[in-house]
Amino acid sequence: MKHFIQFESKDLGEKLLNLALAYKANPRRDDHKGIGKRVGCIFLNPSLRTRVSTQIAAQHLGMEAMVLNMDKEGWALEMQEGAIMNKGSVEHIKDAAAVLGNYFDILAIRAFPTLNNKEEDTTDYVLHQFMKYSGVPVVSLESAIRHPLQSLADQITIAECAPVQRKPKVVLTWAPHIKAIPHAVANSFSEWTVGMGHELTIVHPEGYELDPKFTQGATISYDLNKSLQDADFVYIKNWSAFNDYGKILCTDERWMLTEKHLSKSPEAKIMHCLPVRRNVELSDELLDGNRSLVQLQAKNRIYAAQAVLSTMVDSLTGIK
Amino acid sequence: MKHFIQFESKDLGEKLLNLALAYKANPRRDDHKGIGKRVGCIFLNPSLRTRVSTQIAAQHLGMEAMVLNMDKEGWALEMQEGAIMNKGSVEHIKDAAAVLGNYFDILAIRAFPTLNNKEEDTTDYVLHQFMKYSGVPVVSLESAIRHPLQSLADQITIAECAPVQRKPKVVLTWAPHIKAIPHAVANSFSEWTVGMGHELTIVHPEGYELDPKFTQGATISYDLNKSLQDADFVYIKNWSAFNDYGKILCTDERWMLTEKHLSKSPEAKIMHCLPVRRNVELSDELLDGNRSLVQLQAKNRIYAAQAVLSTMVDSLTGIK
Amino acid sequence: MKHFIQFESKDLGEKLLNLALAYKANPRRDDHKGIGKRVGCIFLNPSLRTRVSTQIAAQHLGMEAMVLNMDKEGWALEMQEGAIMNKGSVEHIKDAAAVLGNYFDILAIRAFPTLNNKEEDTTDYVLHQFMKYSGVPVVSLESAIRHPLQSLADQITIAECAPVQRKPKVVLTWAPHIKAIPHAVANSFSEWTVGMGHELTIVHPEGYELDPKFTQGATISYDLNKSLQDADFVYIKNWSAFNDYGKILCTDERWMLTEKHLSKSPEAKIMHCLPVRRNVELSDELLDGNRSLVQLQAKNRIYAAQAVLSTMVDSLTGIK
Repeated sequence: MKHFIQFESKDLGEKLLNLALAYKANPRRDDHKGIGKRVGCIFLNPSLRTRVSTQIAAQHLGMEAMVLNMDKEGWALEMQEGAIMNKGSVEHIKDAAAVLGNYFDILAIRAFPTLNNKEEDTTDYVLHQFMKYSGVPVVSLESAIRHPLQSLADQITIAECAPVQRKPKVVLTWAPHIKAIPHAVANSFSEWTVGMGHELTIVHPEGYELDPKFTQGATISYDLNKSLQDADFVYIKNWSAFNDYGKILCTDERWMLTEKHLSKSPEAKIMHCLPVRRNVELSDELLDGNRSLVQLQAKNRIYAAQAVLSTMVDSLTGIK
Repeated sequence: MKHFIQFESKDLGEKLLNLALAYKANPRRDDHKGIGKRVGCIFLNPSLRTRVSTQIAAQHLGMEAMVLNMDKEGWALEMQEGAIMNKGSVEHIKDAAAVLGNYFDILAIRAFPTLNNKEEDTTDYVLHQFMKYSGVPVVSLESAIRHPLQSLADQITIAECAPVQRKPKVVLTWAPHIKAIPHAVANSFSEWTVGMGHELTIVHPEGYELDPKFTQGATISYDLNKSLQDADFVYIKNWSAFNDYGKILCTDERWMLTEKHLSKSPEAKIMHCLPVRRNVELSDELLDGNRSLVQLQAKNRIYAAQAVLSTMVDSLTGIK
Repeated sequence: MKHFIQFESKDLGEKLLNLALAYKANPRRDDHKGIGKRVGCIFLNPSLRTRVSTQIAAQHLGMEAMVLNMDKEGWALEMQEGAIMNKGSVEHIKDAAAVLGNYFDILAIRAFPTLNNKEEDTTDYVLHQFMKYSGVPVVSLESAIRHPLQSLADQITIAECAPVQRKPKVVLTWAPHIKAIPHAVANSFSEWTVGMGHELTIVHPEGYELDPKFTQGATISYDLNKSLQDADFVYIKNWSAFNDYGKILCTDERWMLTEKHLSKSPEAKIMHCLPVRRNVELSDELLDGNRSLVQLQAKNRIYAAQAVLSTMVDSLTGIK
């Protein structure tokens, strides 16, 4: 594994999942592995869980993690090739990424989509510019189109809570939000859930179809109540339209998930990546009740990041 | 000691004071005690001394301290139960505090008062929401109504500089300021000074009475010159009105402390928690002269925090 | 070496240069030297390279580095003696610097010039206030008039790439920029290059003469093409006027360095401290071609800072 920016294979997914569970059982078991290795955590957008869980994961491995909030710290990056830099941007990605690659063994990058430049977003332009110019392994801390560390944490959570005797039924359901939200969590959750061999239904209002390259193998539905029936895991998430790019097409409150929606799903656990808009995306009763796995997901972010960083350190030091 | 948010007893106060003095004599004496323990320092308001002294205290103990400036890093928290989150706040305290409790062994929280919602402030609402939902021990880094780490540092300073043969006379005097300032430092200084067995006079213009629950056992006076006579320690501090909540009632420059005020107090040392508005709260001549203990107080912030964190680590690991 | 704020002597410069090269060969060779020593990195202005390279340098030595972004973290400092602090500034430099001196063994300070108060800038007022009131050794992370860590890194780069058989010819050439830029990098580059015994030509449009106290021993020219002929190292840098203080006098694009300018300088390597305005200061072709040393300079920032911190730790512990 050179970079960690997406789901690659069921084999690698299972290897990372099992390593994460081993770290959860004993977080400091490899606390010398990362000594002398530095990971630079570059945030072009704000973060709480991702930043803290990644720093903790690095600490567990003895690595040095350093956080750069480039959004806040006044360092507007120029992304366009050949730009005449006589405007607001102070440094070209070419130069900044190369410097960071000189300073760190691994770069971890958060770069949200614009939601108005579909081509730039769907090619994951900013993340790939960092990969191209830094010359070091890159971990995605959520890019324009994927959030693989969240998805790995979600798969750990599903593995921990899955029914013993049968294949779990997993549902990803769209929920309302007041803002236009990226597709990254939904895309990655679909990519990983199908990739790890689970049965997935994605349900949303018409017009909210995700980029089909992430949803192959999933069942797409517009019927919320039917989709939820007998679900084991219900992942609630808003996203803006993909076809009518970045637009909010629906604010129908009937899509806000409540206990009533789960009346025919006695086993259903609910999942959300957080932060969550309470009583907009889903109800307090669900978040505060026994069905909720959201805190378990957040906790598992640590071990997901730890498994990924550990595997990358092995690659750096030539261990396969 | 589960949480550290206020003065609890003279016994505990003396235990912390003596431990702090031991750390001052040998800061690294327990440098393995905190290994593998993490403290999350959550700032909802800015900080210099508190942030740095707490991080240093943690380093001395081998703990991992992580700073989250939630005010700056764009993470507006919803505090109200049952809120429909369709406005500016991006995450509910319930969820954020629980996540932080999952990530850290101890949380240290700075949460200033609103100064316009008296009920919310006087119940220390934000601090208690963190305590309620995080599920881990909490250290106050200054709450709406108390600043106990400052007060412990102040008691260390008084213990180091007190006259040998007699009980010291301690005076807390109100001083002018251009802004409406919280009551936390004044409340805690009164609570700790009386609690530790010292004689305390609080002097201020009429209308600036503090919440009486913090001033029991202190003498309240409106006569500045009389109160200062024969003082050993004069603590200068502004606060806004408590009864006429959050208001500025007096800007009379005669309350700005100067050398002239101390003409009948040859032994008086002056104290201030910093930052100080020079030549508004008190004069340059006092701050720059031999009476000043302000730098000693600032230095003692390290050992106050170290004593508290050390005692909390003992609690975490089952040592009483 | 008590403070590190400027070029002092060729002896010290060579000692630091050789130590830096030794650290580059083996970054962790002194990884216990700084244990228990703390450096506070105080940024009154934003930073990427300087912050990260200084933190890495400290880590290599086992030191604890702590970053305070005082520009961002809402802590406006009062600089004037005797100020009545009834305006926006929240703390006097006297008090803040003394506190920081209590908390850290070494302070590293970034304080840019105003570019409108020439007297304050040319006396390096803010840096000297920190030195005066902190009471601890100070490292300049770029002051109003000098950037010595950059210059030491530049000298390392020149030493690594210099021709074997002859003295290198070094040229510092002014380049256009859209903003009024400080003189610190140009001043220090001149001071160090001449001080280390190199032949230096400084070329710029008329009116852009630097403060002569930094350029003694250098040849000053207004003829770009003639100056560049047979150059070995061409340092490209914008600065605002010094005599007509802080003004932009020239925007002539012919001063933007391109490959064409170097047609008679086959050996010329180009240098820049970064961040660079591409296609404003110099062309993409130069930055992306084989002549460019800019990434090597950035990398050498680590070892420059490491040599300086290491030498200061020796001073702290009484080793000469």
